[in-house]
Amino acid sequence: MPLLTESERTEQLSGLKSAGWKLVEGRDAIQKTFMFKDFNEAFGFMTRVGLKAEKMNHHPEWFNVYNKVDITLSTHDCGGLSPNDVKLATFIESIAKH
Amino acid sequence: MPLLTESERTEQLSGLKSAGWKLVEGRDAIQKTFMFKDFNEAFGFMTRVGLKAEKMNHHPEWFNVYNKVDITLSTHDCGGLSPNDVKLATFIESIAKH
Repeated sequence: MPLLTESERTEQLSGLKSAGWKLVEGRDAIQKTFMFKDFNEAFGFMTRVGLKAEKMNHHPEWFNVYNKVDITLSTHDCGGLSPNDVKLATFIESIAKH
Repeated sequence: MPLLTESERTEQLSGLKSAGWKLVEGRDAIQKTFMFKDFNEAFGFMTRVGLKAEKMNHHPEWFNVYNKVDITLSTHDCGGLSPNDVKLATFIESIAKH
């Protein structure tokens, strides 16, 4: 899996940035915090993301406490952002309630 | 939910410490990192812990990446370790493969 090219970055990350994803300082990764009503909603969301991640064989780094889920995406194999991160983030956006 | 008493700490935390749980520096909490074969095993474990946590209405703070699950337990309502943390940690030990 190759790193995103400069033009892919410009095009594909801009939509995610508009949706609240931020570049992580000090590494080539994106991050967003999702808030839910309660743990039931948060873990239900995590389960949907987990199933997708497993199918893609591309997994998030994530932290959860109660209704909060903090997600960081990067591609370990290539040491930075790849099309897989854009794909997973786009899926996450499609199922998240903001 | 009250904080653990001193004698409860001595008695109930010692078994968990033997199992690899550590007191967190700077706050009244316990922490342990669990490693699994892959994401399937790690997320299966998280699902079992999540169901128990929801039933207890006592939720972990946890971080996952691929086969690693890092769990911190503390009781927000009383600002430190309570019997619920011991109960959840004991359950976690009972289902974890080390």
